[in-house]
Amino acid sequence: MTDSLADFNAFRSRMNDLIAGKSNLTINRFFALDSRAYDAGALGTKTKEMLGLVASLVLRCDDCITYHVVRSAEEGATDEEIFEVFAVGLVVGGSIVIPHLRRAVARLEEVRASR
Amino acid sequence: MTDSLADFNAFRSRMNDLIAGKSNLTINRFFALDSRAYDAGALGTKTKEMLGLVASLVLRCDDCITYHVVRSAEEGATDEEIFEVFAVGLVVGGSIVIPHLRRAVARLEEVRASR
Amino acid sequence: MTDSLADFNAFRSRMNDLIAGKSNLTINRFFALDSRAYDAGALGTKTKEMLGLVASLVLRCDDCITYHVVRSAEEGATDEEIFEVFAVGLVVGGSIVIPHLRRAVARLEEVRASR
Amino acid sequence: MTDSLADFNAFRSRMNDLIAGKSNLTINRFFALDSRAYDAGALGTKTKEMLGLVASLVLRCDDCITYHVVRSAEEGATDEEIFEVFAVGLVVGGSIVIPHLRRAVARLEEVRASR
Amino acid sequence: MTDSLADFNAFRSRMNDLIAGKSNLTINRFFALDSRAYDAGALGTKTKEMLGLVASLVLRCDDCITYHVVRSAEEGATDEEIFEVFAVGLVVGGSIVIPHLRRAVARLEEVRASR
Amino acid sequence: MTDSLADFNAFRSRMNDLIAGKSNLTINRFFALDSRAYDAGALGTKTKEMLGLVASLVLRCDDCITYHVVRSAEEGATDEEIFEVFAVGLVVGGSIVIPHLRRAVARLEEVRASR
Repeated sequence: MTDSLADFNAFRSRMNDLIAGKSNLTINRFFALDSRAYDAGALGTKTKEMLGLVASLVLRCDDCITYHVVRSAEEGATDEEIFEVFAVGLVVGGSIVIPHLRRAVARLEEVRASR
Repeated sequence: MTDSLADFNAFRSRMNDLIAGKSNLTINRFFALDSRAYDAGALGTKTKEMLGLVASLVLRCDDCITYHVVRSAEEGATDEEIFEVFAVGLVVGGSIVIPHLRRAVARLEEVRASR
Repeated sequence: MTDSLADFNAFRSRMNDLIAGKSNLTINRFFALDSRAYDAGALGTKTKEMLGLVASLVLRCDDCITYHVVRSAEEGATDEEIFEVFAVGLVVGGSIVIPHLRRAVARLEEVRASR
Repeated sequence: MTDSLADFNAFRSRMNDLIAGKSNLTINRFFALDSRAYDAGALGTKTKEMLGLVASLVLRCDDCITYHVVRSAEEGATDEEIFEVFAVGLVVGGSIVIPHLRRAVARLEEVRASR
Repeated sequence: MTDSLADFNAFRSRMNDLIAGKSNLTINRFFALDSRAYDAGALGTKTKEMLGLVASLVLRCDDCITYHVVRSAEEGATDEEIFEVFAVGLVVGGSIVIPHLRRAVARLEEVRASR
Repeated sequence: MTDSLADFNAFRSRMNDLIAGKSNLTINRFFALDSRAYDAGALGTKTKEMLGLVASLVLRCDDCITYHVVRSAEEGATDEEIFEVFAVGLVVGGSIVIPHLRRAVARLEEVRASR
């Protein structure tokens, strides 16, 4: 694990501002759409964040995993629930998911320790 | 859409039997593990099937999508809920998901028509 | 090659209508965003369609390739230009791109024959 | 399974000729490089074909799988050996590999029946 | 962002030399083919570098993105043009592209600052 | 290259213990299955490790590549053999494999230096 959660958030925030400032309409609309996609509807936000987490895990996107681990925990997902999300992702995506699972678990530890 | 759901199930069942008969221990254990991964635990089966569905969608595996659309519907997921799963998969996976989304929706229509 | 271009377009159009009718706001906004992403800006539409084509090729999405082959040809891309897009996609994406390249070339023949 | 092995080979051969005739130097050199990559060296051709097979399986490229199943069988790989290649691919790539595994096994049956 | 552009280039250069020295004919020919794939033809080099950039972005290969951001800028691509390439990649590849987009923008800043 | 092989192994070992301690049955069975998948059968362990290596290379999983480079070397694979595995992976997976190939070669150097 290279960066702490604080470093991750600082870089993320700085780059999001820089990207938004470039005024590319397609990119800015995509970011708006992305942030609304997890709002509660027929499914609650916790479920949607877990959907985002398993999708990020099988696509092996560490930063996306970090984001959805943090959000799932904020929405009240327990360790048991999050590990069941991890289990589905592992079976669907295979052993190449394992390195990302290790980093996801390290992030979850960091989230739990920071409360 | 090439095959009907009945054709899909017939081919799937015939090949699963053929594979099981080859007695490769790793393969047979993986199939057993796969079928148990969606059993209810801290998360219910409906939620787990929707996790499998979004993972299949972003990985763009049509047969996997078909399987989890059928199972999600069997577990009581409504069209609204399934479309919210599709929406998360579309935002996470981008426009390359769209052709698979079209086929997923056609499958869902087929499932609803066959009740 | 299973479907003709006419069949492809008919299925695409029918499913797009069905999806739009479900009124999932995230999905409908994504479709709107997708259709505007290739409008001329600092780069012309022909260049953007070729960008969409190479992205579809390396991601190995046959329906997306079909769409962007048709659109690139409509925007005036020559066979030589389209094959140079294919060449970049082949080197970046490797030999797994080849089956999709074969189908892309068959589509291009179909497009040229239908003029 | 849509096409027979004979249909697959006919389409493959026709499109390869069409592509070669376009005289794109990068594409033609890539095809030459691809066909030499499996020549015997420090590793024998059978081993290299099995490497190509597992790579095609985890990347979920049905046509590539068909090609390497045929070539592995021609080089003398037994069913037991090919299923061990499949097993590694399944564990590495996860359950999304299963639909491709089913089609791979159907192809292997077709190859064995055509001898 | 772990490494500076200078560190990236130094590691890249050192490993390329080491790989070339191993005299694997397939690998060395692939490297030669790769470096010629962006030469001007029916399409100019700037366009080809932008094709390489969008392909690298949707395949989420940070080092490839860095290489093509540098080369696109050297060929005269403006920030507006590069952001339109990013926009196509984002819509095609979805929100999992975002972390790579952030790093791509940081690289572009580094390139612009080093002129 | 961020971490040394020793750091990689320490993090890997610590996280594996932490994951095992969570007692998620699916995850723990998957880990057991993964570790048995490379046992000698109709194919020897060296061949299976090289299959795991090429699969990891085309899927661009650096940690998986590190693991299988180490294991292939332990099973007696020579540099020439490992570079032929790399060559197949490069042709199958394309130029996006190159950054992972560079890191794989750096790992191989580290393994050879540590004997």
